[in-house]
Amino acid sequence: MTTTEYIEQHRDRFLNELKTLIRIPSISTASEHKKDTHQCAVRVQEYLVRAGMDKAELYPTDGHPIVYAEKIIGEDKPTILVYGHYDVQPADPLDEWDTPPFEPTIKTTAQHPQGAIFARGATDDKGQMFIHVKAVEAMVQTGSLPCNVKFMIEGEEEIGSPNLLPFIKEYREMLRSDVILISDTSLLSKNHPSITVGLRGLTYLDVKVRAARADMHSGLFGGAVANPINVLCDMVASLKDEKKHITIPSFYDDVEFPSERDRTLMREAPFDAEEYMDSPGVFGLEGEEGYTTYERTGILPTLDVNGIWGGFTGEGSKTVIPAVASAKISMRLVSKQNYEKITRLFTEHFKQIAPDTVKIEVHPHHGGNPYVTPTDTPEYKAAEAAIQQTFGEKPVPMYEGGSIPIVAQFKEVLGVETILMGFGFDTDGLHSPNEHFGLWNFFKGIETVPAFFSAYARMKDLTA
Amino acid sequence: MTTTEYIEQHRDRFLNELKTLIRIPSISTASEHKKDTHQCAVRVQEYLVRAGMDKAELYPTDGHPIVYAEKIIGEDKPTILVYGHYDVQPADPLDEWDTPPFEPTIKTTAQHPQGAIFARGATDDKGQMFIHVKAVEAMVQTGSLPCNVKFMIEGEEEIGSPNLLPFIKEYREMLRSDVILISDTSLLSKNHPSITVGLRGLTYLDVKVRAARADMHSGLFGGAVANPINVLCDMVASLKDEKKHITIPSFYDDVEFPSERDRTLMREAPFDAEEYMDSPGVFGLEGEEGYTTYERTGILPTLDVNGIWGGFTGEGSKTVIPAVASAKISMRLVSKQNYEKITRLFTEHFKQIAPDTVKIEVHPHHGGNPYVTPTDTPEYKAAEAAIQQTFGEKPVPMYEGGSIPIVAQFKEVLGVETILMGFGFDTDGLHSPNEHFGLWNFFKGIETVPAFFSAYARMKDLTA
Repeated sequence: MTTTEYIEQHRDRFLNELKTLIRIPSISTASEHKKDTHQCAVRVQEYLVRAGMDKAELYPTDGHPIVYAEKIIGEDKPTILVYGHYDVQPADPLDEWDTPPFEPTIKTTAQHPQGAIFARGATDDKGQMFIHVKAVEAMVQTGSLPCNVKFMIEGEEEIGSPNLLPFIKEYREMLRSDVILISDTSLLSKNHPSITVGLRGLTYLDVKVRAARADMHSGLFGGAVANPINVLCDMVASLKDEKKHITIPSFYDDVEFPSERDRTLMREAPFDAEEYMDSPGVFGLEGEEGYTTYERTGILPTLDVNGIWGGFTGEGSKTVIPAVASAKISMRLVSKQNYEKITRLFTEHFKQIAPDTVKIEVHPHHGGNPYVTPTDTPEYKAAEAAIQQTFGEKPVPMYEGGSIPIVAQFKEVLGVETILMGFGFDTDGLHSPNEHFGLWNFFKGIETVPAFFSAYARMKDLTA
Repeated sequence: MTTTEYIEQHRDRFLNELKTLIRIPSISTASEHKKDTHQCAVRVQEYLVRAGMDKAELYPTDGHPIVYAEKIIGEDKPTILVYGHYDVQPADPLDEWDTPPFEPTIKTTAQHPQGAIFARGATDDKGQMFIHVKAVEAMVQTGSLPCNVKFMIEGEEEIGSPNLLPFIKEYREMLRSDVILISDTSLLSKNHPSITVGLRGLTYLDVKVRAARADMHSGLFGGAVANPINVLCDMVASLKDEKKHITIPSFYDDVEFPSERDRTLMREAPFDAEEYMDSPGVFGLEGEEGYTTYERTGILPTLDVNGIWGGFTGEGSKTVIPAVASAKISMRLVSKQNYEKITRLFTEHFKQIAPDTVKIEVHPHHGGNPYVTPTDTPEYKAAEAAIQQTFGEKPVPMYEGGSIPIVAQFKEVLGVETILMGFGFDTDGLHSPNEHFGLWNFFKGIETVPAFFSAYARMKDLTA
């Protein structure tokens, strides 16, 4: 039986297994879901065993466990290390979901006429990660696996992978590989496949502005004391100028833009503004002057407030001046920006611009550096060939807006480059209500991964 | 028995009755406390019956009931209408209370060496309102009541008295009186008594900035779409200039300052900055350039954000760009500013300054006009004399920062001026955790009210 026949024959089971995985609310940031998250790891381990791995184990960490599995077919064969994550983002706001976030529901949409699976984690990253588990199963069960394969599936990607770096440092030898393969990014579209060659870095911080020990009556104190919400608004507003350029001193020092050739390719890549805007239903596009949307999300850094709170937020009215106002602020980083340096620059600047009437606290959550994949390598060419084969189109190299902070660390610690071969769409509602993953995308991924394994084995053979 | 003897003899009972009233969590804005609020009205009614009123009744409204009571001793006598409220502000943030907010606890403080009663509503306005119930009881029970007295105690002051205006319109005849007496303001200090002659008006609005239908992933959309939190911060920040002057066009058109003589009196009034700052524990004073603190809270309008929320505000991090950000914004008004006009000016301006990438909603909550008490009247002179008698000091006329929106309406509908004879301190934590009311203040109030009744009867007799 060919791999393709095997996949065809087991379609329904593959989908049902993915649904089983999705039903587990493995929200890594929520302590009340610690057990669920662990259970999800166990389930991933079971699927890897059933896929035919030589070994599949849970490695405990200070947080959620890492699932590691491997199948070694020969010391002379190239080794592909698949990385993915089984944890998901919180599902709130719950009332904006059309179907329960942890009850996978198949529905068709304009973009997904063959149906898509709606649920938290459907695409990010359970569906995309599971592509590899099933593709490898198909190769193993049909006796066609051409490379050694290792899996490292973690449960803390959505909270910044705090325990993955120590793990890869400790198990550097076990993780030895020629390339790392990740599906946690997007395709341009069905007819315009792409490979992600740039990932933004990230730094994420909590800030707190305190103006008093206790809340105050706005009548007795209003006008004569600092209102920490107004101060926070002033401070946040001052972090960008009218052109949406970030005003933190030295913020752009390490930003280098891609070559003019690459920028031209990106500008020529098909971009459907209406489709892009339609998924979250935005009213218009905006951003730093002089750049296209792909450039704004791919090669420019950002500064966004991800959450803000302070004062009375309940029903009705309360004439209070609160003691404290807080915000969660993140910056996406590009090129050679270093997240630790940016965190420091932000913190210094934020404290520096505060008026004397408030006290500032800044708590960095997590961060990661940007990453750029070289495109003149056997692994990139293998990915290109695989996609050309299954999509019938050569993929465009794309800079993506999201972050997978660990990818830069893989390069630093393991010395291995990463291929970011994602199969979702940007419009799949990642981190949002009604997240979904197309069935077409899921099975196209399962079809493409074996093509990559074959192409990579051939190319390494040629280079050897 | 004299009134003073009667008060002395019943001190403990007066205090216990006040505690009983305070234990009822009559939070008017919280629908889950509707029953408590009603129960509190019934309790006030009972105390008025026991005080010896001819009648004491509950008048239902579309919201919480109004308690009305009266004792008429003669058609030829002047009539004093006491207004107060039995509803309270919400108690949150609960974790900042040292003792439970609805379990009155007596503790001494530097300002209150004879003890203060700590609880939500202790001073605002249960304690201050109850002064009148007990003072009138003392006069009635000792046969020394010199004026007719009417009570109108409502349960919706903290939510803007939405049903009081229709009530006073409907019962204008029943409420006929020569002066309205309210204790819902503050004294400068024990040794520097004051009468409030200015109250700020208020307009309170909810604003909502929507940038999308659904929340977005900050990686995929960050930098290319409007972030409603950043937009809200920009918009709020732009509402004041660097000198803290409000930038809404025409905002200051109807602001007239008091006479230079009155401003001098205010500037000369004792002001203990440290004491003022200590109660909420603020780190410094600030406000519009060129004004003292009393002027900033008394004769200047304000714009404060009372609450703000949007995006992810839970534990940990979520890289989301929210669809919506919201805020509660209030403006304190002075002099001849009209709250409906200001609400309109704010709404127009807020929509006008919004970028095209967002949609703005503005929902006014409630409002009220500023009020200024004339000081050349028998009632003001009676209040001055009463305080001179019981405090041994002539009271300073003060402009206060708080709002009692209905006072301007009393003047408009009933044609009667109001005397604002408050007995609390600004530092008593109104609307804040650990609100309290000094026992000295409570009993000094009960002693002063009969002095006012006598002085007023005398003065009206002289003018008649």
